[in-house]
Amino acid sequence: MGDRDEQGESERWIIVTNDDGVYSPGLRLLYEAVKPLGRAVALAPETPKSSSGLGITLHKPLRITRMNLWGFEIHAINGTPSDIIHVAVNELVRSPSLVVSGVNIGDNTSLQVILSSGTVGAALQASLLGIPSIAFSADVEGPERLAEDRDYAERITLVARAIAKKVLEEGLPQGVDLLNVNFPSRLTSGTRVKIAPPARLRYMEYVEKREDPRGAPYYWLYGRPFPAERDTDVYVVHEEKNICITPIALNMSPRGSYPHEELAPLAWKAQNTLSNIP
Amino acid sequence: MGDRDEQGESERWIIVTNDDGVYSPGLRLLYEAVKPLGRAVALAPETPKSSSGLGITLHKPLRITRMNLWGFEIHAINGTPSDIIHVAVNELVRSPSLVVSGVNIGDNTSLQVILSSGTVGAALQASLLGIPSIAFSADVEGPERLAEDRDYAERITLVARAIAKKVLEEGLPQGVDLLNVNFPSRLTSGTRVKIAPPARLRYMEYVEKREDPRGAPYYWLYGRPFPAERDTDVYVVHEEKNICITPIALNMSPRGSYPHEELAPLAWKAQNTLSNIP
Repeated sequence: MGDRDEQGESERWIIVTNDDGVYSPGLRLLYEAVKPLGRAVALAPETPKSSSGLGITLHKPLRITRMNLWGFEIHAINGTPSDIIHVAVNELVRSPSLVVSGVNIGDNTSLQVILSSGTVGAALQASLLGIPSIAFSADVEGPERLAEDRDYAERITLVARAIAKKVLEEGLPQGVDLLNVNFPSRLTSGTRVKIAPPARLRYMEYVEKREDPRGAPYYWLYGRPFPAERDTDVYVVHEEKNICITPIALNMSPRGSYPHEELAPLAWKAQNTLSNIP
Repeated sequence: MGDRDEQGESERWIIVTNDDGVYSPGLRLLYEAVKPLGRAVALAPETPKSSSGLGITLHKPLRITRMNLWGFEIHAINGTPSDIIHVAVNELVRSPSLVVSGVNIGDNTSLQVILSSGTVGAALQASLLGIPSIAFSADVEGPERLAEDRDYAERITLVARAIAKKVLEEGLPQGVDLLNVNFPSRLTSGTRVKIAPPARLRYMEYVEKREDPRGAPYYWLYGRPFPAERDTDVYVVHEEKNICITPIALNMSPRGSYPHEELAPLAWKAQNTLSNIP
């Protein structure tokens, strides 16, 4: 780096995590991306914890195993992505400046997917604790692309570093709690970087009924892509094949006045029911 | 019932589910609450699926087992609360008018808890599909209160029925995707029904380090209640001991103009990085 930020950078602690587990090439890639920006500490679940959302482990003890896989130390933890954020800020990095999560194998676009994603879950948990965070995901089928397609991996590394550097230097805009960044399946010098909100749905789920050899029914759940609305993260990543940066706010309240005037009669009805019980 | 809605009511299908599983007294209670309002269909996971959020099962087949526990049919499914919504709308109830989820053993207050809750997860999944939904939870320590404290259970039944009836008759207000209802640990005729937004945090998580008999360290994660901000769901349920109705919108975008002007320089920086790769 070598600019005037150099001294400040040595004080900045960055937590790097990945819900696909310690062996994910996405973890390595993201660690390399943020290493020049501060003191990076890598933590990940021992085993993949996709679709774990914000789950927390309360009923079994957690272990931390230190390993060295690619020339840097990784802390393997037998817990969920959210557990890892709590262990990190309690035991390893008291005041992190940033949490980066990913790069996930597979995109995390749409609220439907975001709300069940372990990658975004770790970032959301960090945001709840007031730590700026960024989730990164790539629309790839398997880990090979991140491990073996060097051009693709390098482009992700440089773009992720640019985004992380900007957030470290300037913070997130007022009212934004985290950034959810999705890379398309190919990156060229012509790929655009767009800002767009999340779509609501990514998949419509269907059920296929079958019979086992004994004649008993069983069911497969399978998703089919839901048509993407224009100017949403799904559209940017899957239709336009561009990079999408989606600002997320931890606020699920309806817009407008509060308490919601239109709900007042409902609350009154409930109140009335309760008050009239002898 | 016997009012002019009687004919209409016979056409209304209501999905009743519960993340604590088929044996939860909360499922029975909620079924009894909505039974007079339409055709109620009960579905639940075979085993408890708390903290499962919006996870979906794609890698193993699902089974539906019909059982009769308390005088009505319950469909037990070896999946998550979100799976159950998809199985229900694909196989059992084509166009439900309402999904009710709960009554959960333990409250689901604050975004931190809401985002990891299986009870709210089922309701959120229904909302994503455009079905009005209501999640109900009670601040009780164990299932006994719902099973054995008849006054408490009856009050919950009547209030839940009043809320569900109002939503069936009038729908949810524009911009509201689901209601998250939390009951305090005691209900009297003096208990108030309030409308309040979710707090951000319910627990601050800590880590306690211990050593096993062989001297190896392990860690317990444990939460301590986070001080409740006034006029939030946590405050209403835990400080005021009142019933809280929290309207939830499936919209996690920051308020204000879009694309977020303040993020434009960050996107530009990322774009510039990518464009300059040879």
